[in-house]
Amino acid sequence: MHGSLTAPQASSSIDVLDLFRSVRTASRALGRPLSDADATVQSMPDASPAKWHLAHTTWFFETMVLGQHLSDHRIFDPSFNFLFNSYYESIGERQPRPKRGMITRPSLDEIFDYRAHVDAAVERLLMSDPAPEVITLIELGCHHEQQHQELLLTDILHLFAQSPLRPAYRDPSPVAVSAVDQGPAGFSALEGGIVEIGFDGQGFSFDCEGPRHRALLEPFELADRLVTNREWMEFMADDGYRNPLLWLSAGWATVGAEGWTAPLYWRERDGQYWTMTLRGEQPVDPDAPVTHVSYYEADAFATWAGRRLPSEFEWEHAAAGKPLIGNFADSDRLRPRAASPEEAGIRQMYGDVWEWTRSAFLPYPRFKPVEGAVGEYNGKFMSGQFVLRGGSCVTPPGHIRPTYRNFFPPDARWQFSGLRLAEDA
Amino acid sequence: MHGSLTAPQASSSIDVLDLFRSVRTASRALGRPLSDADATVQSMPDASPAKWHLAHTTWFFETMVLGQHLSDHRIFDPSFNFLFNSYYESIGERQPRPKRGMITRPSLDEIFDYRAHVDAAVERLLMSDPAPEVITLIELGCHHEQQHQELLLTDILHLFAQSPLRPAYRDPSPVAVSAVDQGPAGFSALEGGIVEIGFDGQGFSFDCEGPRHRALLEPFELADRLVTNREWMEFMADDGYRNPLLWLSAGWATVGAEGWTAPLYWRERDGQYWTMTLRGEQPVDPDAPVTHVSYYEADAFATWAGRRLPSEFEWEHAAAGKPLIGNFADSDRLRPRAASPEEAGIRQMYGDVWEWTRSAFLPYPRFKPVEGAVGEYNGKFMSGQFVLRGGSCVTPPGHIRPTYRNFFPPDARWQFSGLRLAEDA
Amino acid sequence: MHGSLTAPQASSSIDVLDLFRSVRTASRALGRPLSDADATVQSMPDASPAKWHLAHTTWFFETMVLGQHLSDHRIFDPSFNFLFNSYYESIGERQPRPKRGMITRPSLDEIFDYRAHVDAAVERLLMSDPAPEVITLIELGCHHEQQHQELLLTDILHLFAQSPLRPAYRDPSPVAVSAVDQGPAGFSALEGGIVEIGFDGQGFSFDCEGPRHRALLEPFELADRLVTNREWMEFMADDGYRNPLLWLSAGWATVGAEGWTAPLYWRERDGQYWTMTLRGEQPVDPDAPVTHVSYYEADAFATWAGRRLPSEFEWEHAAAGKPLIGNFADSDRLRPRAASPEEAGIRQMYGDVWEWTRSAFLPYPRFKPVEGAVGEYNGKFMSGQFVLRGGSCVTPPGHIRPTYRNFFPPDARWQFSGLRLAEDA
Amino acid sequence: MHGSLTAPQASSSIDVLDLFRSVRTASRALGRPLSDADATVQSMPDASPAKWHLAHTTWFFETMVLGQHLSDHRIFDPSFNFLFNSYYESIGERQPRPKRGMITRPSLDEIFDYRAHVDAAVERLLMSDPAPEVITLIELGCHHEQQHQELLLTDILHLFAQSPLRPAYRDPSPVAVSAVDQGPAGFSALEGGIVEIGFDGQGFSFDCEGPRHRALLEPFELADRLVTNREWMEFMADDGYRNPLLWLSAGWATVGAEGWTAPLYWRERDGQYWTMTLRGEQPVDPDAPVTHVSYYEADAFATWAGRRLPSEFEWEHAAAGKPLIGNFADSDRLRPRAASPEEAGIRQMYGDVWEWTRSAFLPYPRFKPVEGAVGEYNGKFMSGQFVLRGGSCVTPPGHIRPTYRNFFPPDARWQFSGLRLAEDA
Repeated sequence: MHGSLTAPQASSSIDVLDLFRSVRTASRALGRPLSDADATVQSMPDASPAKWHLAHTTWFFETMVLGQHLSDHRIFDPSFNFLFNSYYESIGERQPRPKRGMITRPSLDEIFDYRAHVDAAVERLLMSDPAPEVITLIELGCHHEQQHQELLLTDILHLFAQSPLRPAYRDPSPVAVSAVDQGPAGFSALEGGIVEIGFDGQGFSFDCEGPRHRALLEPFELADRLVTNREWMEFMADDGYRNPLLWLSAGWATVGAEGWTAPLYWRERDGQYWTMTLRGEQPVDPDAPVTHVSYYEADAFATWAGRRLPSEFEWEHAAAGKPLIGNFADSDRLRPRAASPEEAGIRQMYGDVWEWTRSAFLPYPRFKPVEGAVGEYNGKFMSGQFVLRGGSCVTPPGHIRPTYRNFFPPDARWQFSGLRLAEDA
Repeated sequence: MHGSLTAPQASSSIDVLDLFRSVRTASRALGRPLSDADATVQSMPDASPAKWHLAHTTWFFETMVLGQHLSDHRIFDPSFNFLFNSYYESIGERQPRPKRGMITRPSLDEIFDYRAHVDAAVERLLMSDPAPEVITLIELGCHHEQQHQELLLTDILHLFAQSPLRPAYRDPSPVAVSAVDQGPAGFSALEGGIVEIGFDGQGFSFDCEGPRHRALLEPFELADRLVTNREWMEFMADDGYRNPLLWLSAGWATVGAEGWTAPLYWRERDGQYWTMTLRGEQPVDPDAPVTHVSYYEADAFATWAGRRLPSEFEWEHAAAGKPLIGNFADSDRLRPRAASPEEAGIRQMYGDVWEWTRSAFLPYPRFKPVEGAVGEYNGKFMSGQFVLRGGSCVTPPGHIRPTYRNFFPPDARWQFSGLRLAEDA
Repeated sequence: MHGSLTAPQASSSIDVLDLFRSVRTASRALGRPLSDADATVQSMPDASPAKWHLAHTTWFFETMVLGQHLSDHRIFDPSFNFLFNSYYESIGERQPRPKRGMITRPSLDEIFDYRAHVDAAVERLLMSDPAPEVITLIELGCHHEQQHQELLLTDILHLFAQSPLRPAYRDPSPVAVSAVDQGPAGFSALEGGIVEIGFDGQGFSFDCEGPRHRALLEPFELADRLVTNREWMEFMADDGYRNPLLWLSAGWATVGAEGWTAPLYWRERDGQYWTMTLRGEQPVDPDAPVTHVSYYEADAFATWAGRRLPSEFEWEHAAAGKPLIGNFADSDRLRPRAASPEEAGIRQMYGDVWEWTRSAFLPYPRFKPVEGAVGEYNGKFMSGQFVLRGGSCVTPPGHIRPTYRNFFPPDARWQFSGLRLAEDA
Repeated sequence: MHGSLTAPQASSSIDVLDLFRSVRTASRALGRPLSDADATVQSMPDASPAKWHLAHTTWFFETMVLGQHLSDHRIFDPSFNFLFNSYYESIGERQPRPKRGMITRPSLDEIFDYRAHVDAAVERLLMSDPAPEVITLIELGCHHEQQHQELLLTDILHLFAQSPLRPAYRDPSPVAVSAVDQGPAGFSALEGGIVEIGFDGQGFSFDCEGPRHRALLEPFELADRLVTNREWMEFMADDGYRNPLLWLSAGWATVGAEGWTAPLYWRERDGQYWTMTLRGEQPVDPDAPVTHVSYYEADAFATWAGRRLPSEFEWEHAAAGKPLIGNFADSDRLRPRAASPEEAGIRQMYGDVWEWTRSAFLPYPRFKPVEGAVGEYNGKFMSGQFVLRGGSCVTPPGHIRPTYRNFFPPDARWQFSGLRLAEDA
């Protein structure tokens, strides 16, 4: 992912060792279903090869942590600094982003060796009673790697969708879909007023989640569930993709240039919509939340529905104090799920799809990037992007929190991105 | 300009007749220094021919006002609806924007005839005791035309800058420049708190300036003058355009792709900087405000200076209650001026350059576009743009006010756009 | 036009004075129906503004002739050397070709003054008993200008076709069209053998028309008339533009990328084809030769018809010894005409449309470009172009001869280009 | 390679079985040094993945031979028809060429299984006394596969050159280079006259090599060796890449757009030129023939040298009757070699680099493409390409003959393409 990391509260080296091991093991597991070729190809300039994700996150530990703080560390391969630097201008030249897919060597197996080499060194460092800032830096690296875990999955999905064979990343058997229309979403009223926004100092966060500050909200209403595929098909049937009056000007231009007529990955076959998933091509589940839609589409849908998207502050205020319950707790994830009819209140806040907000990604008051290379920095991306909140079915569970600010350009569709409606009270 | 118009308070038909006459006369005067060829050519897709501006503003009156409210109006030429519609999807097909420069006929003289034909009809309508909403609509048309007056000048400047002859739009004799370095800008402290933002209902405004609402500001400081060319040359001399750490990621990519090394129109000649102006090529005045810089450049400069750009709310709060005094009151305008050393307090708020703010152009709480064609609408542009405040040396004087929200994409440079620094208190 | 000129036989200064006056007068007449705006706009990078054609041909005389050979000549305007140089690298920097349309000043009237200034000087020079090489150079300039006369007309047609008003360059009243299907073309058998090809040394020619040399031809057959619009409509009706097997690979890619479904300028309206002409939009005449087709289309048509295009040597051999009779002798030109049923033998060789041949534009044996600036040179264009033979309805009459080699890239359509079929005997 | 195949003379099924086995074995061997990832990635739209070459050549046999002539053949995988069709429009839809690199599955091992499956079936068919046209078709497939063997190597070289690691396809140890300047090339005089050109009917050829026909040649001289890297460095030192007067117009535009300053793959390091080879990065050998230059560069070099390129007929006439001796007979190939000083006469005709000729790739007199899918056809590429003759250090030995016409666009550089000078006598 874009962005690096801000300094959290001090954690113990034992806690961080646990975190480190679990995150590194999880990445390793994500790479296991992939062939060397799967892990090498780059499907578009915005995506990166799986191998690159697995190596870059390792490079981060080797360069930012071991290179500075483990005096006798043996660099695994000096050429990797050029290959696997992402965009840290202060650390030197690097492979141009659109050419990450040209690196057929080292192989995926060599990358796994690289990971093992660095894992051993980081563990050794953590067990040697390192300074608090080293512990903090390793914790940062773990969260950084969790971002890349999600991207690895969205990028693999995009790659596999380019193949006419529509291969499955995992378990291609058909998934059961919900059968009953849930009826219209309900809307919960929220009062507004002066609220606290941003990370409160407990645990880890990225720099752009703070500083915590006050914001003034007008009263508003928020839908109690995500917009569904069923609703999206109604939008499509009502000429949603053909009516310029529903769209932002830049959005309408994109519809024309890209020929959008449905969410990314949808395909009509035998009178039914199918969509590409990490389990191969599957029928669209009408009651599951719509996903792989851009900001432009989300905004046009909200206009069509006579509503609007929430601001990121409205979303965070509604989420505050809620338990981090979501489909993401389920071990059998990889796809968004229909809202549970039994659950009360505002549902599906976490673990299905990232929710587009109407907020541009901009700095909070008094925001300052961290100094140094690790401070190359979410701030660098603060133009041309919209904030998404929540977390998706491929976000690592420990990587979800109410203050988390994800961001993408308004035409991005390859993430698990959907929407929830809001309205002025 | 982008965007149309929202309904203001009722004005009298006499007042609006005065306004109409003065606006229409001013546009006519702007066209007078131009040849038929000058007025026809389109220098880039973002710019429009002068002839088009003069005709489109007239088409607006003929289509939105006369076509609806003057039953015996004779349409001047039915083909003009295709030629001079800008982007109103609800009104039908139109000449594609990048091909506006292909319309060599009608000639500029014919456009002046068209203007006279419509002027007479609108005046007749205004003198016939029309309904209040018709008066309102004509007032809208006047403000719409004032926007295009500014664009006509910025677009002509861009066109003339493409010619190796660097022709002058008006009076090419050299202009006197200031001689004394004013020293560093001062910073005024402002308290913040809950403030009122947006149009307050007196007189005319565009839809996106409202609704008036409360906003919460932290204490901040604002520079008492604009950033000067002298300061910009220091930024350049300090490798400002060569240091990626100063730039937003998208800004740095643009620097590379476009080869930016100075503001638009600057050219080094004989060891000195010259810049293209509406009076032909002139030496850069060190103490005049820098202009023709993009948001990306403004943001990089602020980072280099250890400051930041103000938010649009900070700007508006600082401007509130101040008299609308600016260089723009001077009859000999067309270029930004050095700040007056005698003046106290925050200077140069109006009439020199549009000031980039760090605020994305987004809707205010409870904003709703107007219904119908005139409501195609500032809202349509609410993605990918930043807000500029103030008003420039080519903004019509009556078109400047503290709540006015101008907006352009972050790479736009052909407007008279500059910056003022701010800081957290 | 591309290319300059080779040294002809010596002509008398009186003859060349006559030629000069008639060519210069003809150009002046071509500019008369145009407004300043018409003459300024550039409709695509491959086309030039009419004003540019009128000025560049004048620049050629001023720079290549007067600047070298009239010692007291006063340069009309030194900036014109930058503005109106076409591509002579040895003469210095110039306005980039795609930006020729940015030059709104000087005006068309000033260009006419420029022409008068240079005309007087050249006439004075010619009347002062100049050296033979000066006479030769002026003769070259006249032929160069004739090339630009044709381009001025094809470029104006392209410009006017971009306007939704479809203005007429001259006399927009409808033209009478032929009524009777002429039946299929006849084919004349030619014997082949060793033939002489290229300019034979009498009168004027361009460098690439020589040296005269021998070529070996196999026996072949050549159609006695051009392919007609009627035949082209049959090709279209038989899915000619939808069948990839008929097309060259690069041609088929162009069909897809450009969305070709008919010759350039054709438009279906009320069940009939109309085409843009120099007399405005007119119905397609079924018996007139098809024009505004590319090499790719000509080749695909020939494949569809079970024939092939002739080589340029076959064409020249068939034309050799024939009188230069064609529709071009008619004073009321500007459009290709149906073949005359009365005429015997191979018809329509000159003055209707340029005929695509299957020959790439390559040097003849022992071809050497002329030394110096005037030798920048047809040779420079000897890649990626196909040869056209004959001459069109907008070619100046004195500019047509059997050895003339016109050339354009295989996707060019804005010239008056058509085809004649051939076959192996 | 582009193009398929024409019907040769009848060969015996035993001969063709031998040929088939040796060609198929050779392809298999070419794939052996590659990892799954190496074989999958596509480095540019003009190149194809190695896996694709290995599969497409197999698909050719399965579709064109087995599908038609072996009634009980079990198709290995029906999806492969979509994946591995190259451009046969008559056989149906296919993976778009620029997306061949998205096919990560099937793996390289599966492609080897596919090859074995088809090999067994073709061998069974050949041993079953098939009809002569079947034998012919299999022979065609073998020559088709040999074309792809060369492309596999040039495409792998291009891919490996994109990696900062510059991996070696084979044996990366440094190669010995020649040490002594050979002095200037000699020129052999040839008489010209009427000569026979094209395939004479003995053995195999592609359709575009015939029909054999007469051509008329003027007397000419031909260099007795290829242009060397030493000579090329002189051209560079003499501003060869900076002097527009040396270049074709389209070539000069390409120099500017692509930033060419040396042959493809050259890189200056520590005051010396290095070049990427199939053995990794190696120092440029001054006496080896220059390679990886485009037609534009070859033509500019010849102009600089005061010579010209030969026509393809001149080349073929000079080659006629010469033994097929070349470096290619050496088992340790993969790079072009310096000319042998001992050898007399015209040297290096075969097996070092393909030699650009000044001839556009056009049909010979009376050329007709073969009917049916196998006739989609060299003829399809007969625009925008120049002919190369000879054969390179990666051309399979049995695939070289004097009448062979290779062809590429004038800006192509990734083939082993060089040049030999010629001159008018």
